[in-house]
Amino acid sequence: MDSQEITQETETDPRPWLRIRELAEAGAWPELRELLEELDEPDRVYAAARLPAELLAAMLEELARGDAASLLGLLPSSQAATAIEEVEPGAMAEILEVLPSDERADLLAQVGSQELSAILAEAGLDTSEATRTLLQYPPDTAGGLMATELFAVDESSTIGDVIREVRGNRHFTDFQIQYIYVVSAEHILRGVLQLRTLVVASPERPISGLMIRDPISVPTSCPMTTLEEIFDRHAFLGVPVVDEQGVLLGVVHRSAVEEASAESAQADHMKSLGIASGEELRSMPVWLRSRRRLSWLSVNIVLNIAAASVIAVYQETLQAAIALAVFLPMISDMSGCSGNQAVAVSLRELSLGVLRPNEFLRVWRKEALLGVINGIALGVLIGVVAAVWQGSGVLGFVVGGALALNTLVAVSIGGTVPLLIRRLGQDPALASGPVLTTVTDMCGFFLALSFATLALDALRV
Amino acid sequence: MDSQEITQETETDPRPWLRIRELAEAGAWPELRELLEELDEPDRVYAAARLPAELLAAMLEELARGDAASLLGLLPSSQAATAIEEVEPGAMAEILEVLPSDERADLLAQVGSQELSAILAEAGLDTSEATRTLLQYPPDTAGGLMATELFAVDESSTIGDVIREVRGNRHFTDFQIQYIYVVSAEHILRGVLQLRTLVVASPERPISGLMIRDPISVPTSCPMTTLEEIFDRHAFLGVPVVDEQGVLLGVVHRSAVEEASAESAQADHMKSLGIASGEELRSMPVWLRSRRRLSWLSVNIVLNIAAASVIAVYQETLQAAIALAVFLPMISDMSGCSGNQAVAVSLRELSLGVLRPNEFLRVWRKEALLGVINGIALGVLIGVVAAVWQGSGVLGFVVGGALALNTLVAVSIGGTVPLLIRRLGQDPALASGPVLTTVTDMCGFFLALSFATLALDALRV
Repeated sequence: MDSQEITQETETDPRPWLRIRELAEAGAWPELRELLEELDEPDRVYAAARLPAELLAAMLEELARGDAASLLGLLPSSQAATAIEEVEPGAMAEILEVLPSDERADLLAQVGSQELSAILAEAGLDTSEATRTLLQYPPDTAGGLMATELFAVDESSTIGDVIREVRGNRHFTDFQIQYIYVVSAEHILRGVLQLRTLVVASPERPISGLMIRDPISVPTSCPMTTLEEIFDRHAFLGVPVVDEQGVLLGVVHRSAVEEASAESAQADHMKSLGIASGEELRSMPVWLRSRRRLSWLSVNIVLNIAAASVIAVYQETLQAAIALAVFLPMISDMSGCSGNQAVAVSLRELSLGVLRPNEFLRVWRKEALLGVINGIALGVLIGVVAAVWQGSGVLGFVVGGALALNTLVAVSIGGTVPLLIRRLGQDPALASGPVLTTVTDMCGFFLALSFATLALDALRV
Repeated sequence: MDSQEITQETETDPRPWLRIRELAEAGAWPELRELLEELDEPDRVYAAARLPAELLAAMLEELARGDAASLLGLLPSSQAATAIEEVEPGAMAEILEVLPSDERADLLAQVGSQELSAILAEAGLDTSEATRTLLQYPPDTAGGLMATELFAVDESSTIGDVIREVRGNRHFTDFQIQYIYVVSAEHILRGVLQLRTLVVASPERPISGLMIRDPISVPTSCPMTTLEEIFDRHAFLGVPVVDEQGVLLGVVHRSAVEEASAESAQADHMKSLGIASGEELRSMPVWLRSRRRLSWLSVNIVLNIAAASVIAVYQETLQAAIALAVFLPMISDMSGCSGNQAVAVSLRELSLGVLRPNEFLRVWRKEALLGVINGIALGVLIGVVAAVWQGSGVLGFVVGGALALNTLVAVSIGGTVPLLIRRLGQDPALASGPVLTTVTDMCGFFLALSFATLALDALRV
């Protein structure tokens, strides 16, 4: 398969999803399975996402367990959860049995507690207990992200013993196991053996001399940020999770952490745009979508009223120098842009590790110098436009001066606020939001309108 | 090492970087090496990032080659490139020799051509040729991302042959090699052997029956988006790169693609905020930083003038109904927020694969319904505020009506424009930018001011 073929695959005919729906409605499962088989992954996901929950559930019951499980993993999680609740619990238990423990727990995390109990009652005792244990941990901790499938050997083994165990182990071939964990008789983690060591070392050697001793491990409560740090710094494919006694409980795979951080970044982005709970799909009911978007927009109105009240105070000035009204939204927008640029540079420097959250002064000096240069450049530009367009040099000075000063204010706030928020232990990405914009708006309106008040006699002419 | 320890490590005393700088200035290399040894990675990166280019170069020459190489890999790439140009070419060639070919090429990609020639002249012939070949490929293609270090065996081998070769191979232990590629006598790719197969299968078996035949491979020209797709769909750790004849040239590792996409996402984000070239560090000269930010801001001024010209047209109306000036920035900001929410939902649905770029009508219908609901809610809210605050029911109707209608416009445009941009083959994330805001601004100003013109007699009272 070369790249050309792949590109073609994603550009397929859009109609198969309709055919899948017709087949599902007619209950023509053999034909549906056949058609689904022919589709590639994106088309399969798209077709499944378009089915109403009951039809999707009916289809999941009729597919091979493995196919149903992989489809569930690819759907948006809210949609997967709704479908899981509709599937007959016995069938659902069988589908979930195919998945590794961490993916199983992820899927069940959003399912209602009644449906969850029904499904787990149908599952094997081991699966049921393991799943309940995993679901106890918060989803963004090592406990919530770990898989319990792992391959552990006793510390007294030889390489030959391990190879024999590997050959007879179901987990080893079923799942993508990359490390062999070495434990004491009490199941306390002692070391890690790399797969390559099994190939390179001679069978009679004891593993105690070949394993990596005292490997990095984390407690179940380890937060996702720490896991991200570990995987950032080390090329590990997984990190073992232990309890307070050092007993090995599970493994957090790199892929699980990467997936979880991508999802949380997405959710944060949605939240920063004012979509409550961080998720919206257009297949959700309109009242839910509307409420989630409105919850933020109504807060934003309050911020806007705060900014607008500055204009209201100077209403008389504005009436006397009405040409200024043309430039107020411009000052607001330009200052917002300048401020957000400074925020973005601070966020990037923080994430690269070349900026520390306590360096307010350094950041401010660097931003202030740039703010003066850009402020003068933008101020002159907008000032000339204002003077020529409205035929008033004084207006040019008022508008240009306000934008110049407000650019300095915006980059100073924008550059330093992310540091402040980080020091307060919050996510600095919050800074690029509407609070910054509101403050720069208020300041910009105030500067422009108070300059205008001072120059009112000249402006009135 | 548990999570507590890690948290402490990142919160260390900020002063070591100053001490490193003093030691570098004094040329006290043994002490500097010792101190650097004691620091953890974030502190090392931070200290190095704070050195001027010449001091950083001097330090790199004095460190062990492996330490210098890993430090270079952790620095922001523009800073690494500047330092590389300052290091004595012989020393630099030795440092680069430690790195895998893909990382070496990445580091050299930004180095000036004169300095590059000087370094490669000092490097071994193999390294020099391999690096020149890799540097020929565009950085965001399989050729530019691949590493040439790989482990290939002849298709006629047995498992036992492979194990013997593995034991004697330098690359196998030096680099994180996960797959064994199987090639014909002409070095044409025939299959892939998993590491676990070496452990599980008996030595006398020929590999031809155990390898995965006709594995997915890509040409050197394969774009990054296709590579991202492949790694998204498959749990592979690497994908082989072949030429037109199928000859194996290298491997693109999953980590290389992940790193490159994270970097390009970062750069896109910076560009979307108007930072030209997508990179800025505060250690760069202020004129460069200023120019990069201004290049976009000056375009933004033009967009702003376009929006403001709508207000200019209605200047007389505005003067007669000055209270309206308080609400214009509010209508602009609120509509921009609503539009960006719709953009974000479309981007997310596109990336989840549950929305196709040709579904304008479906998206528009879903957004229009929500736009009517949210428009009415926000319109009533702002209308009541306007009526009470300014004591004019007519003003309330004008402002509320304009915001209600403009919310519908904003979500309609915001929801569908990403689809249009994707159909044009561009990155739909561009849609959330200032062009959308400008259009919704113009439309909002127009609605508010033309309603006001119609109701002017009532407003004047």
